[in-house]
This record gives sequence, structure tokens and C-alpha cells, in this order.
Amino acid sequence: MNQNYIEPNPWSLVEQGFDAERVKSSESLFSIGNGAMGQRANFEEDYSGPTFQGSYIAGVYYPDKTRVGWWKNGYPEYFAKVLNAPNWIGIHVYIDSVPLDLSTCKEVIDFKRELNMKEGWYTRSFKATTSNDIQIRVKVTRFLSLTLDELGAIKYEIQMLSGKAAVKMAPYLDAGITNEDSNWDDKFWNITQNSQEGNRGFIEAHTMKTHFAACTFMQAEALFNGKKVQGKPLERTETKIGLSFEAILEEGQRASLTKFGGYTVSTNHKKEALVNAAHTVLDTATTLGFDGLLEKQATAWKGIWEMSDITITGDVKAQQGIRFNIFQLNQTYLGKDSRLNIGPKGFTGEKYGGSTYWDTEAYCLPFYMATKDQTVAKSLLEYRYHHLEKAIENAQKLGFTNGAALYPMVTMNGEECHNEWEITFEEIHRNGAIAFAIYNYYRFTGDYSYIPEMGLEVLIGIARFWGQRVNYSNKRKKYVMLGVTGPNEYENNVNNNWYTNYLAKWCMTYTLEQLQKVKDGYPDDYERIIALTKLTETETDTWEEISGNMYFPRSKKHGIYLQQDGFLDKEMIKVGDLDKSERPINQKWSWDRILRSPYIKQADVLQGFYLFEDHFTQEELEKHFDFYEPFTVHESSLSPCVHCIQAAKLGRMDQAYTFYLRTSRLDLDDYNKEVEEGLHITSMAGTWMSIVEGFGGMRVLDDKLNFTPQIPKQWDSYSFKVNFRNRIITVTVSIAGTSFELSGKEEMSIRVAGKRVVLPPDQKVSV
Amino acid sequence: MNQNYIEPNPWSLVEQGFDAERVKSSESLFSIGNGAMGQRANFEEDYSGPTFQGSYIAGVYYPDKTRVGWWKNGYPEYFAKVLNAPNWIGIHVYIDSVPLDLSTCKEVIDFKRELNMKEGWYTRSFKATTSNDIQIRVKVTRFLSLTLDELGAIKYEIQMLSGKAAVKMAPYLDAGITNEDSNWDDKFWNITQNSQEGNRGFIEAHTMKTHFAACTFMQAEALFNGKKVQGKPLERTETKIGLSFEAILEEGQRASLTKFGGYTVSTNHKKEALVNAAHTVLDTATTLGFDGLLEKQATAWKGIWEMSDITITGDVKAQQGIRFNIFQLNQTYLGKDSRLNIGPKGFTGEKYGGSTYWDTEAYCLPFYMATKDQTVAKSLLEYRYHHLEKAIENAQKLGFTNGAALYPMVTMNGEECHNEWEITFEEIHRNGAIAFAIYNYYRFTGDYSYIPEMGLEVLIGIARFWGQRVNYSNKRKKYVMLGVTGPNEYENNVNNNWYTNYLAKWCMTYTLEQLQKVKDGYPDDYERIIALTKLTETETDTWEEISGNMYFPRSKKHGIYLQQDGFLDKEMIKVGDLDKSERPINQKWSWDRILRSPYIKQADVLQGFYLFEDHFTQEELEKHFDFYEPFTVHESSLSPCVHCIQAAKLGRMDQAYTFYLRTSRLDLDDYNKEVEEGLHITSMAGTWMSIVEGFGGMRVLDDKLNFTPQIPKQWDSYSFKVNFRNRIITVTVSIAGTSFELSGKEEMSIRVAGKRVVLPPDQKVSV
Repeated sequence: MNQNYIEPNPWSLVEQGFDAERVKSSESLFSIGNGAMGQRANFEEDYSGPTFQGSYIAGVYYPDKTRVGWWKNGYPEYFAKVLNAPNWIGIHVYIDSVPLDLSTCKEVIDFKRELNMKEGWYTRSFKATTSNDIQIRVKVTRFLSLTLDELGAIKYEIQMLSGKAAVKMAPYLDAGITNEDSNWDDKFWNITQNSQEGNRGFIEAHTMKTHFAACTFMQAEALFNGKKVQGKPLERTETKIGLSFEAILEEGQRASLTKFGGYTVSTNHKKEALVNAAHTVLDTATTLGFDGLLEKQATAWKGIWEMSDITITGDVKAQQGIRFNIFQLNQTYLGKDSRLNIGPKGFTGEKYGGSTYWDTEAYCLPFYMATKDQTVAKSLLEYRYHHLEKAIENAQKLGFTNGAALYPMVTMNGEECHNEWEITFEEIHRNGAIAFAIYNYYRFTGDYSYIPEMGLEVLIGIARFWGQRVNYSNKRKKYVMLGVTGPNEYENNVNNNWYTNYLAKWCMTYTLEQLQKVKDGYPDDYERIIALTKLTETETDTWEEISGNMYFPRSKKHGIYLQQDGFLDKEMIKVGDLDKSERPINQKWSWDRILRSPYIKQADVLQGFYLFEDHFTQEELEKHFDFYEPFTVHESSLSPCVHCIQAAKLGRMDQAYTFYLRTSRLDLDDYNKEVEEGLHITSMAGTWMSIVEGFGGMRVLDDKLNFTPQIPKQWDSYSFKVNFRNRIITVTVSIAGTSFELSGKEEMSIRVAGKRVVLPPDQKVSV
Repeated sequence: MNQNYIEPNPWSLVEQGFDAERVKSSESLFSIGNGAMGQRANFEEDYSGPTFQGSYIAGVYYPDKTRVGWWKNGYPEYFAKVLNAPNWIGIHVYIDSVPLDLSTCKEVIDFKRELNMKEGWYTRSFKATTSNDIQIRVKVTRFLSLTLDELGAIKYEIQMLSGKAAVKMAPYLDAGITNEDSNWDDKFWNITQNSQEGNRGFIEAHTMKTHFAACTFMQAEALFNGKKVQGKPLERTETKIGLSFEAILEEGQRASLTKFGGYTVSTNHKKEALVNAAHTVLDTATTLGFDGLLEKQATAWKGIWEMSDITITGDVKAQQGIRFNIFQLNQTYLGKDSRLNIGPKGFTGEKYGGSTYWDTEAYCLPFYMATKDQTVAKSLLEYRYHHLEKAIENAQKLGFTNGAALYPMVTMNGEECHNEWEITFEEIHRNGAIAFAIYNYYRFTGDYSYIPEMGLEVLIGIARFWGQRVNYSNKRKKYVMLGVTGPNEYENNVNNNWYTNYLAKWCMTYTLEQLQKVKDGYPDDYERIIALTKLTETETDTWEEISGNMYFPRSKKHGIYLQQDGFLDKEMIKVGDLDKSERPINQKWSWDRILRSPYIKQADVLQGFYLFEDHFTQEELEKHFDFYEPFTVHESSLSPCVHCIQAAKLGRMDQAYTFYLRTSRLDLDDYNKEVEEGLHITSMAGTWMSIVEGFGGMRVLDDKLNFTPQIPKQWDSYSFKVNFRNRIITVTVSIAGTSFELSGKEEMSIRVAGKRVVLPPDQKVSV
């Protein structure tokens, strides 16, 4: 049913055996990235079988044109696409003039891929009998350097197993690339220049419309049977340049090509200095050498794992799953650049445009807060602060006034760049997630400074939006919110989505509280902000009035809040009663049928119970969980983690474990049959939450860490670290009990299952 | 405010004076058509000012590509566009080698356009001082022949008013045309050949993808100062061919060019015989000559007016308005070809793709039934019967089964070709309009034969759709219909739209009745249809169960049916209380704001009260009218006519008259500020209904015509004819009373204001 070819292994992804059917899936799974760029695990040599080529540069996008049936006022202008950037990994390999191509080889054996997560590199090796009957062994090692984040490195090794042959290796740059998902086959890159200097090559190009300039560069050298061979320039075309290294190899002899490549980009350099910058990168890389760089790579990853690793004993698949998630998150975003954010597919595919969604605030922030220095989380908040002006413009386009801010559903630069009205105009709960992240950041880090400095302005814009977005219903004598799409995108344009209404009310209340707090504690900031935003008492009175009189749909019969006004009018057949052939419904059903169904794509009411857990009793949670879980199809990668945490909270560890497996191995086991398109990066943070908040029961209450540790019966133990307010706590949970270890110099008190526990520094405390 | 430059005139549209700002509006208003083709009133000579070129061939379309944000299952593949066809009207005019171009002339005086509706021709005349200071007078007459419906004719006359000059007239064909509304600048036509024979020219081209082939042809001859001048071929390009006629004209002398042109199309001829067919058309035209053709044109229009004219005395603007509407309807569709239908913009623009909408059944059918032979109305019904299979496929794509049929919202060939889910999937009430048209046809014509022959199959498909589209709500213990868009497209994806629910219930009931009637009266047809459709008793039982237990949203407080479940949650500010600067809201507001507003684009609940008038009391109508009218913005051209009829029924003649003016002069006075894009053809039938059903109060009840004549106080009298079951009745209403005149040989009884009146043949009866 689900895919099952990745070998269980605690630190690596390993694939054995060549299967053309799996190539695109493996290209996603074995993707590598370093926060500044990333690429799918495409073959370096020619491959004529089905493949999905992809190499991406962080922050470089294209405003692709789309046009719906008819344009309507307020529709965004474009749909941003992460751009497939020029290919620098390519190496044509010829054996006696015949191109090496695994798709046409007579035999491919001992094919193996490994993604070594511990040290951050990827290898592929195989033995092939070429179509001209020559047997060779190939081994390729590749990584994107964390140390020099504009650089990637490849070592391509060939050994002659039988006979002798002329072996040619021709590393090249190719700017003749397109996006698979471009709407109308637009050309995205305009090549301005290409040049070659010795064993180095450069293609300069800029993106159409957005005018990002990038220099794609390479350098190559080759040893044939231990001897250095001089490269000759390939015939140059407008889109392609390269070198060719050739020699005869006798049986048993080896050839090895080292290629450095990468991008220098105008976001980091002056446009006219891109080639120079590339030279500098290559000079440093040459000095360090392939092996030196690889060593630094392992060291850098050691540093990342030191803080973010989660170990699980007794369940290697679970161990592999969580490490894969943590590894990919770190490959995607390292928090070094506040202009960047976390795209739902990271650097592993094109879908979702590589843009920023509410995923960042709702799912990724907790991971980065707990496993990095708190400046990283602050960077993520600042990203939205820098976009506040654009969010206000976005709301203006829809007719909102007076500084109301609607953050975009999807963005690259603060502008809305998704153009389905039911999402863009209506999935407005994202605005609440951005406010919640401000609250969550302060709750976790204790750093209030962000709120008077920047956060309060964001909160005011958001509260203003909600204040204008609701309307008073004479019928209900309450404030209602019409025409929204909740987190469950399988319903569109509903009235009174409970989650959105609740979030709106909370935003207004929270903003009022923060106004008071800043007024009391930071009077200068308060004055500055009031002057800037021209906030009036009438407005704050309105927020108070609305938040006290918000309508929440409820079913008396079921004793629950309703997802939206019309939910109970649906045909309430539980997911378990659907025929399996009907699922996933997003592949089997028409959109028409999905919209009218009761099926929930991802946690919606339950998402609210997750964010505002302390507003509800355990009994209320249980009632809502029992009502909504049976209708949830989890066809969003963001869904199972919330259900996992809640099942754990309800003491249903078996169910929690099932959800955990689904989130942690979503891509490895390809639950949703779409891994070929890329990985689900943002939801990977949900896997981390599943363990830390779900099984570990970690919460921050009243400036204190709380834990309620549980352990799935399939595991012997698990362990994670948390950076709480610059104190590192290691939590180890086993069947026997839980131990805590605090690093640093001062003691700290936490709560475990509700009881206060004092942790002395550098000493293991078992509970 | 609204435009006001068309001179009041009972039989013509007249524009005096040249105003570049009005060119595009006049191009729409002075459009000509003959049912088989049509064109905007573009200038023949060069014009460098703003213009919207358009010449269209009935039934020739192009599947333009669109792509929404993300594709979802069930979305249609394309958006059909009526194609701008090669231009055959063009005539370059040079005065001493300088092109005549009204945009660059030093002076243009005595500019006049006239669209003569009585005889079906269009003229334009002006005096111009060219940029090289030569004064000329130009007069152009143009028409599209009703007699030879592949032919159009132009007479282009020039008189030298001062000085002398070399005058060149170069008539041409130009296939280098595009659609203004093409989504991605696709090329629509592929030119295969062009050729010239003597004074004739031919360009053969076929449409990409749809592969319609068309030969655009012309023939020209010219007299300079009474003498025939030989034409010389223009330099030929791939897209353009033509002739050039040149001579010196002295002061006072005249030149006259006669150009015949048009299209022969593969829908009517073999592809390889298109040029031959064009020759045949031109031979006939040459024999008849320009004047002969013009005479036949007047005769043909006389025949049309004979039956369809409505005269109004005492109000020339109202007279002009109604004639303009009747004229344009007849220019668009004459019922000669059951493959054709009535596009919302006819041949006057590109928007709405020239495709078929529910407008045909809901608005146009009554006009064609009453003013034409009943075969024309039957053609319109047959059009849908021929598309039944495609309607079943369309429903299948959305997940419906077992022969359920969903007719497309927009179509050229039976396939759905609009791709906004909120319309395509949800504006399903169109299915009911198609069933209603079957009922309406029988009610009016008394011809039952269509139902056993074809109609019942259509009804079964439609009833099956409704039976599957509803679901049982456990909460309400009724059948509900979730996720629909009613006629009011300013709400999308609502639950329990009253109009749709009511129509669905009626369709099922009506189908059950017709099944019984056909079983009893046409047992052979019944058996054939049951065998073909495999209809079971379980299905018919289901329809009975559903139609007896359908849910209809109602407000007890207001004593009305609610447009949809959530209507009263809206902010109920009446249209009259909106600032004028906010309107039209579809131009001033974002789609987001519109969707959440209570404003009704076009009659919705009231549309149901119109169709099923006899199901409701006068009091109920009044309550609903009073509730909904104040929220109706009438931003659809299809709206005011329904309100006019209902206001008249409620005896509110002043209000009815206001609505009448709005519908009858919608385009002439450009109420919606969009006449440049083309005319609102289908709604013109609503104007006819406003008079006949609104003021005349015509209804068919129990096989009898009923009238309740009223007259707006602005009028002295009005008169219309109705073809009722092949009997022609002329109704004349004046302040003094109403008279009826029946043609034919037998008497007939009607009801006037509820009282039986017997009409003897050929005798005026006053009431």
C-alpha cells in the first residue's frame, strides 16, 4: 500500500537496488539543502527515465501569471513560484562515446543511495553494464556546504570492472531549465552572459520580472588512474558551458572527478560582482579541498544535532523518522537571514511555490524556539513585522481601512500571491496565527522586548482587521463572521467557522491586554505606536464590545462547538465507514463532492483546542476530539501531529502512536502518495511537537516548563533537549521513568505531572 | 451620469457628431448581425483611436486555456471563447497618399451614424478635412444580408468637397486578428491559403484545436466619377490580401466602392468546397446587386417586424428601446439552425464567450415562442436534448452516477466550458431552467409531442441529478441542498438557496407527472425511454420522498422564504442607504466584500416567484418583493425585467416603468457602464417580457391566454402581437381600454382581467 523501500536505519536513509519507478520519490527523499539553497537528488549523469529536476535558491522566486475564469476586484496579481535554478550538478559521462544512462544500461546492480543525516552528505553507488557491454562501478558523493553556503561539492568516481574503454567525464552548467509547474511555459530566466576561465565556468542570468540576478558557477578537476587530466572546454551554447576530461581506463583503473558548484545571488552581492564572488567561494573551496569541506560539514551537523537531536531506542523506524524530520527542517531553514522563511516543500519541489504560509507560525516556530538560539525565532517574527505595510495594503485591496492588516495566505515578499478567492480572501485565520506566534514567542522565551519594539504594531493591524471583518447579526444579537475558510480547506466560504471566530476574539482581547502592558511598562514605545497607528479609544472599545459578544456555533445535542453554522446539515458518514477505494478523497472525489462532505482535511476546531488548550477542560477536549476525529481524513500533512498531541493528552497512547508514525514517516512511507512532488517540510516540525508536546507533554505555563511524560509501548526510551530561556534541559523518558538534566550553573524549577521538581545544574534528576 | 447621446427616434439609432470617447460604445450599439454572423460597427477605413474590433461567426469558438490557482478534480478543461474572425470590412482610403483616419483628421463635421432597424442597415457619414487639408464627404452603408446569410455588403462613397486629389480605395481581407479577451495571447486562427481571382479574394483559415475551417471572402468594384476603375492586387502577405482602386477626383466629383464580403464555414460546407461556396454566394450577390440586396433586406425585416414589433405611442424613448431590443434579438438568433443558440452578448462583443447560458431557457424562450413559428422554440429545446449525453458526462465528472445529468453553466457544444467552481459546480439551478423550459413550451404551444419524443429523457436526467444532489439532514429531518450558488451570483457556496431547492423539488414532481402522462398516453415511447434510461421504481420513490420533504429556509419574523440559510446574518443595509459612490458594487468593491453583503445581483427568490407565480398568493408576492427589492442592485441585465413584471402585478406601475426603462434602455443609456464590451442580448428578451407579461399581463393558464392590461402613465398606447398556437392576436392597450384582434378563421376565447372574452376572427374587440 504505502511505499516501504527505505531501509530502517537510525542515522541514514538507505535505498538498495535500482527501480526506475522509485526515481522521482527518491529524488525527493534524498534531497539536500543548506538553508541558502537546496536540490532534489537528481542523477549527475544523463538519465532518460522519468525524473523531476530541481535546484532551488532561497528567496529567489518568479511571479507566475494565472488567470481565473473572470478577474474580480481584489484578486492578487500573480502566483509566486520558487524557481528551478540553473543546474550545476550535471556531468555527462561517456564510456567509449556511449552516454552513461541508467535507463538504457543493460544491467544495473548493487545500486545504493545513502543520505547520511548525521554528517549531511548524500552518496550513490552502483555497478552498471553499459549498452556497449562495459562494466563499471560508480560512486558519487555530494553535499551542500553549511560552512560555505553558496557552495556544493561532488565527487564522481568510476572504476573499470571489465575490459578497457575511453572514459569521458564532462561536468557542465545548464541554464536551459524550466519549472514543471509553470502555468504557461513561461521562460523564467534570462541569460546575460556565460564565461569560462581555466577549469571554472560561470553563467550569469537574471529572473524575468523579479530581476534577481544569479551567477551559477562550477569548477572541476579530474584524476584518471591517479593522474591529473586537463579539461577541454565543451562546445559552448547560450545556455550551457562545461569541460571535458577524457582518458583510457584499463580494467581495475579508476577515474575521479571533483566538481564544485553553486550560486552567488544578487540578494547577497552586487549584481556586477557575482562572478568575483563566485571566484572567492571557489578559491576558499579549493584551499579546503573536497575532503576538508566534507569534514567541516560533519562538524557543522554535529553542532546542529547536539541541540536538536531526539533519540528513540527500541524502534528504529521511529528513530529514523524523527531524525529525517529534524534533518530536513535544518536543511531548509537555519534562521541566518530574516528575509527568508520556511516553504512548505523547502527545496525539494515546486508545489506551494516555496512561499511562506501560516505553517511557519503555527507549526515551525515551536521547533525553532526550542532547538536554536532564540534569535532564530525572533527572525521569524521580524519577517512578518517587515511585511506589515504590505499586509495593510493587502487589506486595503479588499476594502478594509484605517490600518487594518491582513497578512497574505502565501507570500514571497509580503504581497499576497495566491489567487483563489476562497483561500486568499477567506482563509483569514492565518492572521490569527501570526498574532498567536507573538504570544507564543513571549510565553516560551520570556523576551517581552519584541512586543513594544515591533509586535504591538502587528497586533493592532490584526485586531483592526478582525474588528472590521465581523458584522453584527440582528438575528443572533451577536457578532458573526461570514464567508470564511477555516483550516479545514475541504469547506470553503462558510459562516462562523468556530476556529476563526475564536482566534479573532482572542486577537482582540490579547491586543487590548498588550496595549495596557506596553502603556504601563514602555510608555515611550506606547506613545510612538499610538502616534504611528493613530489608534483611538473608539477602536479599542469596539474590540472590547466585539470580543465580549462573539458568536460561536454550538450543538446542544452533541455538547460541542460546531466547526461552522451548517456542519450538522451534512451527511455525517464517518471516515471509517467509507470504502477504502474512495480515499484519499482529494484524489478520488470531485471538488464539488468534497466541499459538501463532512470530511476534515486537517484539525480545525481541534486546532483551536491545541492553541488554546488551557481555555478548555480535559472533558471538553475529549468530547470534541471524539466528535471530530472520526470525520478527519488527515489529507493535510499538518493534521496528524495535532491529533497525536491531543490523543496523548487524553491518555490514548496507541492512537497517539499511530498519528505519530503517520506524521514522522509521512514522506518516508509516502502516506499521501505524492512524495514525488517533494517533501512536507513545515509539517515536519509537527513531528517534533508530537514527541516533545505529545509524548513528553511539554508546556510552558506561568514562565515554567511543564512535562507530563508518557511513552509509547513500542519504545524503550526517548530523549530530547530543549533550550528554554538559554538553559538546556535534556529530557529522557523510559518505561522506568523520566530523567532531566540541566546544563549551566543555576538551578531551575520545572513541573512534572503537575508537581514541582527542582533541577540542580549538571546533574541527572530522575522522577 | 448614464450616457445619453443616442437620439430618440422610433425606428433608428442615430448618433450625431464625432466623439472619439464614444467610438467603442457606438461600435457595440450599432452592431449588425443576421443570425449566422455579426459584427461590431467598426470603421471600414483606418482608425488609430481606441476601438474594439469584432466580427463573429455563429457557432465558431475556441477552447481558450485558463488555469486557476490549483486544479481540482472535476474542473472543466477550458473556457470557450467566441472567436474574432478575419476582418472582411476593411477598406484603406488614401487621399493624396495620406491615409484617411478620423483620429488624425484636422476636422470631422456632420458625423452621423444611423442604424435603421426597420430595414436592417447601418450608415455612417461625415465631412472631413484630412491632415493634408483636403475636404471630403464620406458616406458608408453596410448590412449583413438576411437573404444570403453568408454575405455582407458595403457601399463606400467619397465626394471631393474642395480641391482635387488622388483618391485610392483599397478593400482588403485581414486574418491577422486576435481576441481582446484571449487569456494568454494564444493564436486562434491558422491560415492555410489565400488566393485572388479578378476582383475577388479568399483567405482560408482554420481555428486551432477546434478545427473549424472558414473562408473569408470579398469582391469589390469601384466607380470614380461614374467610371469603372480596374482594381490592382495589393501586395499580398500571409494574413492579408486586397485590391487597390485609384483615380484623381476633381472638386465635386464622387467615387463609390461596393464591397461584398463574408464567410463560408465548414459547419455548413465541406472544407475543400469553401472557396467554391464563396464564389456561389458572390455570384448570387453580383446578380442581385447592392441595391437589389438592400431591397430584399428591407423586405426580410418587414416580415420579422410584422410579427414581432411592439409599438408604443407617446414615448419615443420607450419605443426606440423596445425596438432596439427586438431588433438585436433577431439579429442574433433566428432559429434556423438547431446547433446554434443565443450568446449573452450575441455578435457584439467577446465577453461571456458567445456561449449558451440558462438565459436562453429562462428569458429568451418566451420571446421566440410568441413571435416566431413554434419550430423556433422547439429548436431551442432540441439543442439541449442533443447535449443530454454530454450533460450526463458532465455530472459523472463530478461524481454523479446512473444517468444523472447536469447541464453546463456555459457551453458551446454541450461540454462545460466555464471554470470557476463556485459557478460550474454550484450554480446548478440552470438544470431546473432547462426542465422549466420544457414545461413552458408545452404550456404555451400545447405541443405535447416533444415530451415523449425527447423531453422526458432530459427530465429524467435532471431529476436524477437533483435526487443525488440533496442530502438528508438529520438535524432538520428534511432534505437539504448544500453548497450552491443561486441566480444571485453575489453569494457563492451557500446552503439551501430557496430558489434552487424549490426548482429541484418542482423538477422531481414534474418529472414524475410526465412519466405517468407518457405511460398513459404514449406507451411505446414510455417503454423505449424506460429501457433506455433503466429507470427504476426505487428512483421514482426517492424523488417522491425528497420532493415531499424538502427543506425551505424561512424567516418567521419577516414572514418570507429566505434566499439561503445565512441570509439574515448579514449586515442588512438597504441599497438606498448606500452612498452612490459605492455603486456599482461590482466595480467599486472587492469580491470579498460583495460576497458578505446582502446585495442581490439579480432576482433570486423573486425569480422563483416569477417562474412559479401561480404557486403563491398576491400577498406572498408582495411580502417577498418588499423584502428583497431593497437589497437588489440589478447589476445583472437579467434582473430588472423580473422586478418590472412583479411590480406591475402588484399594481405599482411607476416602479414597473422605472424597471422597464432600465431594461429596455440598459445598453442605449449604458446603465452598467460597460456597453463598450458589447450588448446584453439575452436580457433584451426580458424587455419584451416586461411589456407583454408585465404591462400586458399576459399569462397562459389552462390552455388559454390571459391578459391583465395596464399602461404606464407616460404612454398613450402600446400594441403587441402574439403567436399563440398558430393564431395571431394583436393586443392594443391605451388609456381608454384594450382591444384585441385575432387573425385567422376561427374564434378563440381568452380571459381579460379574469373574465372570459370571445374573439371572433379578423375583428377588433374592445374591452
